[in-house]
Amino acid sequence: MADTEQNVEHREQFSTAGAYVHSGEEYTRDTNYIEDRITRDGQPGKNGEPGWPVEAGRYRLVVARACPWAHRSTIVRRLLGLEDVISLGICGPTHDVRSWTFDLDEGAKDPVLGIERLQQAYFSRFPNYPRGITVPAIVDVPSGSVVTNNFPQITLDFSTEWQEFHRPGAPKLYPEELREEIDSVNKRVFTEVNNGVYRCGFAGSQQAYDDAYHRLFNALDWLSERLETQRYLVGDTITEADVRLFTTLVRFDAVYHGHFKCNRSKLTEMPVLWAYARDLFQTPGFGDTVNFEQIKQHYYIVHTDLNPTQIVPLGPDESGWLSEHGRHELGGRPFGEGTPPSRPASEG
Amino acid sequence: MADTEQNVEHREQFSTAGAYVHSGEEYTRDTNYIEDRITRDGQPGKNGEPGWPVEAGRYRLVVARACPWAHRSTIVRRLLGLEDVISLGICGPTHDVRSWTFDLDEGAKDPVLGIERLQQAYFSRFPNYPRGITVPAIVDVPSGSVVTNNFPQITLDFSTEWQEFHRPGAPKLYPEELREEIDSVNKRVFTEVNNGVYRCGFAGSQQAYDDAYHRLFNALDWLSERLETQRYLVGDTITEADVRLFTTLVRFDAVYHGHFKCNRSKLTEMPVLWAYARDLFQTPGFGDTVNFEQIKQHYYIVHTDLNPTQIVPLGPDESGWLSEHGRHELGGRPFGEGTPPSRPASEG
Repeated sequence: MADTEQNVEHREQFSTAGAYVHSGEEYTRDTNYIEDRITRDGQPGKNGEPGWPVEAGRYRLVVARACPWAHRSTIVRRLLGLEDVISLGICGPTHDVRSWTFDLDEGAKDPVLGIERLQQAYFSRFPNYPRGITVPAIVDVPSGSVVTNNFPQITLDFSTEWQEFHRPGAPKLYPEELREEIDSVNKRVFTEVNNGVYRCGFAGSQQAYDDAYHRLFNALDWLSERLETQRYLVGDTITEADVRLFTTLVRFDAVYHGHFKCNRSKLTEMPVLWAYARDLFQTPGFGDTVNFEQIKQHYYIVHTDLNPTQIVPLGPDESGWLSEHGRHELGGRPFGEGTPPSRPASEG
Repeated sequence: MADTEQNVEHREQFSTAGAYVHSGEEYTRDTNYIEDRITRDGQPGKNGEPGWPVEAGRYRLVVARACPWAHRSTIVRRLLGLEDVISLGICGPTHDVRSWTFDLDEGAKDPVLGIERLQQAYFSRFPNYPRGITVPAIVDVPSGSVVTNNFPQITLDFSTEWQEFHRPGAPKLYPEELREEIDSVNKRVFTEVNNGVYRCGFAGSQQAYDDAYHRLFNALDWLSERLETQRYLVGDTITEADVRLFTTLVRFDAVYHGHFKCNRSKLTEMPVLWAYARDLFQTPGFGDTVNFEQIKQHYYIVHTDLNPTQIVPLGPDESGWLSEHGRHELGGRPFGEGTPPSRPASEG
């Protein structure tokens, strides 16, 4: 299976506990998702994906704070100021083999959708939906049905299809003139880093792990070099590329370093990437979407074949995330001609 | 059971795989070992422990490079120059439920004792020996029988009973005038640090882990403070107290940080302890007894209830151990009136 951007979390849904690691195998990803799109005019996507019209208040973005793939969508929603237009449902950090659940909500039900399990919204769309129940998912509130869980497209559509609802001063996260470069960086970051940490953690043999480890740290060395002299990955402002790298870096020391054995060094020991990650963390829209406790709970409790005790580490010390990063010296304008988003409202 | 110095590795011997962690329990240690002593005149110990006479060439120290309790004895043997007097047998890093084995040796047999399993030397002494087959063990070569596996006494006896065989310039690791302070520091280091990391790793509940984590890092903070202004733990030279702390610190990032979830920070992120540990590592007798690969193999392969995949991490990067530590500025004389040991001969 090619290393295109696919939903690496699928396997977490379908497998019974103990099935993340398959002995002797390199970790591979499920490829199937619901490819519908929400577009400016409701027209289908260019490959014929069914289209739904953008509409304020109609859709609910369902995420888990733990999940790096869902995390992208909450950052982009914040940066673009879509909070009042697309509501947010938040699943708890630990799902069971059937579904992510709304166990954080009062009465363990999503207050808007009125469901306990995200699975219900998938079944509302496709009875007997056979694939993984994944986050992020966008649900059509009137019908209670999932529109799409195609996470790499969701954030791009937030940038390009929802423009009429962007806040004043919203940044251009996927500007036309930089798309080729952003796509190219994203591709390498996805295969080598976003998915690279999973390839280490779910390796089914020592050899598969060893290969995955070198591949991951080679990519991190490349990124360190690239970011040594420029503040952001592409151009001189935050783009979609930074969002996608950030969600892995922010989880690195909390879960990937120990739980997935990505342990040549901690992020805190890679000076360029650590400063870059802190810079983003301290930028409105990034750090305010991070929940370290839920991140740790997800990985350490759900992956019982890696951590049978399900004990969640108390470390690492996270106080360093707010320390001075010095990246301003490289120039760059985080929001380009735009402005930072205001403080987050209460979640939702 | 009181937190006296006991052989924490016992449980590793007796349990079938999967039994290091006991659900809901705080980790506790087996207390039983063979308490015979090797003394200057072969007289019994003061509590009536059977005595065997010191004698050059008669005894073989059997260790595993992986084991922190055995590690003490190899350091002290080097520092005191006892290599030609007490020979060294080395078990491989991974034992099975029955015994440590000599799988590193040609023909998988110890070349002096002629046995494949350390268990045979225990059975030679006590047929049907019912307790853990532990390292370090001192074996009487003529009879092939274990004399003692009482690890805290072994190193003290090396210092105090084997004096006639110490090399010229051997340091005083347990000088009379400092014994009270050394014993006091050793007690706290044992309960809170040497065993504290095991208490984290083998915790049977989240609460037991949380308590163990705080207890460990409180002790490390105390040690950081103590060592900020003095080069060694007790007095101004290396003593038994430094040996005992070193064997845990040198394993900290390689195994305890990730595998045992001792992850508030790495050793490399605790500046005083990291410099102190490097200073010792770079002192002849310390670093030359460390085998990081065997350390990692032991913990990650043997503890299948913590790491069912048995995959051994490639990290951490160990190159920092040889970096400048700056501890000379605190004064101190590592070997007091004595001198460092010469380079190690080939092992054995």
